[in-house]
Amino acid sequence: MQRILIASHGHFASGLKSSIEILTGMGEQISTIDAYVDDSDYTTQITAFIAQAETPAVIFTDLKGGSVNQKVMLAAAGKTDLYIISQINLAIILAVLLDPAPLSAAHLDELIAQSQVERIELTASADESDADFLS
Amino acid sequence: MQRILIASHGHFASGLKSSIEILTGMGEQISTIDAYVDDSDYTTQITAFIAQAETPAVIFTDLKGGSVNQKVMLAAAGKTDLYIISQINLAIILAVLLDPAPLSAAHLDELIAQSQVERIELTASADESDADFLS
Repeated sequence: MQRILIASHGHFASGLKSSIEILTGMGEQISTIDAYVDDSDYTTQITAFIAQAETPAVIFTDLKGGSVNQKVMLAAAGKTDLYIISQINLAIILAVLLDPAPLSAAHLDELIAQSQVERIELTASADESDADFLS
Repeated sequence: MQRILIASHGHFASGLKSSIEILTGMGEQISTIDAYVDDSDYTTQITAFIAQAETPAVIFTDLKGGSVNQKVMLAAAGKTDLYIISQINLAIILAVLLDPAPLSAAHLDELIAQSQVERIELTASADESDADFLS
């Protein structure tokens, strides 16, 4: 039984799964929903995951306030041992997948704090560093 | 000419592009690199984007410290008018794509602060709210 579902507009969810498979070989531990790529009703896939998931389980959604997240929130309302994380990136999914600690809200918040979107400053190239030094 | 590149392990990058196309119809404004899905050398795609991009440009990478991000940092070293954002999610790419303000480090940091990964508390279901009220 799965304990991780990624649900997104388009192929973002299955794309993340392919990244995770390349990096960890653990792609098979993740269920995905690529919504709006055809006319099928993906809400049935959400409810099926929630009914069958090993708990505690996590549903990752693409965008807070987006329609996929809204349908997940409706399907998950009132459930226990089920966590919803939105605005997802690869880092938070890897963190949850690889972390051996029991899932809890507080622990997920710690993992989220370590997985945030980040701007990275460019370093000067070797040549430019030399130029700065010599000028 | 493009000003946005998404580079990832696996199909995460093209998956994000498909989400963006569904949500905004602006997928064609985004270049993608799905690295390690075959044996091709994706570093040439990075250098080609940097050489040809409309500036200021942004390269979005999947994972800080990951090999895709490392190759982007090497190719981008010393460049000006080029920003690198890692640990990306759908929200930050949409924010950059849709924001009319000129790109700058400070403005990107504002957009990043509004786009972070977030745990969402589940609401009680309607039935359970009633039960709580009546009990």
